[in-house]
Amino acid sequence: MKEKLTVIKVGGKIVEEEATLHKLLDDFAAIGGHKLLVHGGGRSATKLAESLGIESRMVNGRRITDAETLKVVTMVYGGLVNKNIVAGLQARGVNALGLTGADMDAIRSVKRPVKEVDYGFVGDVKQVNAALLADLICKGIIPVMAPLTHDGEGNMLNTNADTIAGETAKALASLFDVTLVFCFEKKGVLRNENDDDSVIPHITPDEFKQYVAEGVIQGGMIPKLENAFEAIASGVSEVIITSAAAIGEEGGTRMVR
Amino acid sequence: MKEKLTVIKVGGKIVEEEATLHKLLDDFAAIGGHKLLVHGGGRSATKLAESLGIESRMVNGRRITDAETLKVVTMVYGGLVNKNIVAGLQARGVNALGLTGADMDAIRSVKRPVKEVDYGFVGDVKQVNAALLADLICKGIIPVMAPLTHDGEGNMLNTNADTIAGETAKALASLFDVTLVFCFEKKGVLRNENDDDSVIPHITPDEFKQYVAEGVIQGGMIPKLENAFEAIASGVSEVIITSAAAIGEEGGTRMVR
Repeated sequence: MKEKLTVIKVGGKIVEEEATLHKLLDDFAAIGGHKLLVHGGGRSATKLAESLGIESRMVNGRRITDAETLKVVTMVYGGLVNKNIVAGLQARGVNALGLTGADMDAIRSVKRPVKEVDYGFVGDVKQVNAALLADLICKGIIPVMAPLTHDGEGNMLNTNADTIAGETAKALASLFDVTLVFCFEKKGVLRNENDDDSVIPHITPDEFKQYVAEGVIQGGMIPKLENAFEAIASGVSEVIITSAAAIGEEGGTRMVR
Repeated sequence: MKEKLTVIKVGGKIVEEEATLHKLLDDFAAIGGHKLLVHGGGRSATKLAESLGIESRMVNGRRITDAETLKVVTMVYGGLVNKNIVAGLQARGVNALGLTGADMDAIRSVKRPVKEVDYGFVGDVKQVNAALLADLICKGIIPVMAPLTHDGEGNMLNTNADTIAGETAKALASLFDVTLVFCFEKKGVLRNENDDDSVIPHITPDEFKQYVAEGVIQGGMIPKLENAFEAIASGVSEVIITSAAAIGEEGGTRMVR
């Protein structure tokens, strides 16, 4: 039987504010068994870019990453946010190791081809070094992954944190019994977007199709759930969509294998 | 017999300019056997601080690190400079792993006590996790260390790169036959500071004392050499002071055990 591994993705907002960061680190430290954290940092990147007079341009929620913006995200995601989390976890007795995809060739990507939009230095994940991550994890080291990868030709690439979490969970699913947790602002997928307590506790692929057809699930939640079901189809045991405040608790929306 | 390990420290200037960085990465990639790189990044930190309207204050060549400056150096050293080097080495087939002292608790330090000067968030190295670094090195992973440590209480601390290199070399000397290379602008310790070719090829502790008494060696070179001899006394096999352009070549100033 495979050992359990919890892969948790937290967005920028949670890790960028002192109070929510401390609660997150406490909750993450309390999770038993193997674990891995993937973080964002978009708000801090936008703030630093602003201070430096670099315009932040977003298309479909993704940051257009020119050379100057790549420097900003490399500093913010790989430096400031990542090291704050790592130092904070070390203080809680969690032996964290901050990683970008370049470190130990953990995640290699390809620069996104230019179609309607030129996203610039943005990477689409090509390969996750699962053996190496598993080796670290089994030694009790907790990877803390920044949303950055590399192309193997010397370039860092900006990469969506949800994608990093999903691809990492899928790659590790052959070696571990993986639960993938996406934390966001709401308590889960809501039946009624104006009612925070209308969380749908379980969704099957068929129910998902029906919810979409009925307009219950819409907008940005559709690709999130598509990714979740894709992860399940690729061997991940369970995907949970929940709020960061509820890490380690029951609740949220669950999709199972 | 212990296996050989080369610990190389390069200053900010070399890793911050495209042309010298590429040559350094080529030279570093060509070094045989186990190796570890420690880098600076002061010029980029000063530049970013300037862009953000943060004043860079230096005392005795050390940066006064207030909370805002700590953010700057964490971004620049741990993010921008470190990841550029790591991605560049990966492109050269070197399986680099960027580390600050917080990552895997590699180097723990204490915030420097306030005496005449309050250096702020500056760390004095307390403990290098040699077993862990050795484990990585023996797996063929090449640590690339940023001049940042942590205090074990959640704070990153700005730490001199020469000190990181020296303390890491000393800690690893019980496990490896360590050569410690300090790269700087000159070809080595010069007999005549106006003659770049007047490199003193070897110095013993007694000769060092005499050179200092005669005024041949002075200023910032004195603590550099004191550190070198301290490393030798602590088990490092050889310390070389040379130019970055001469990495892997004969030459420079050598101190041996």
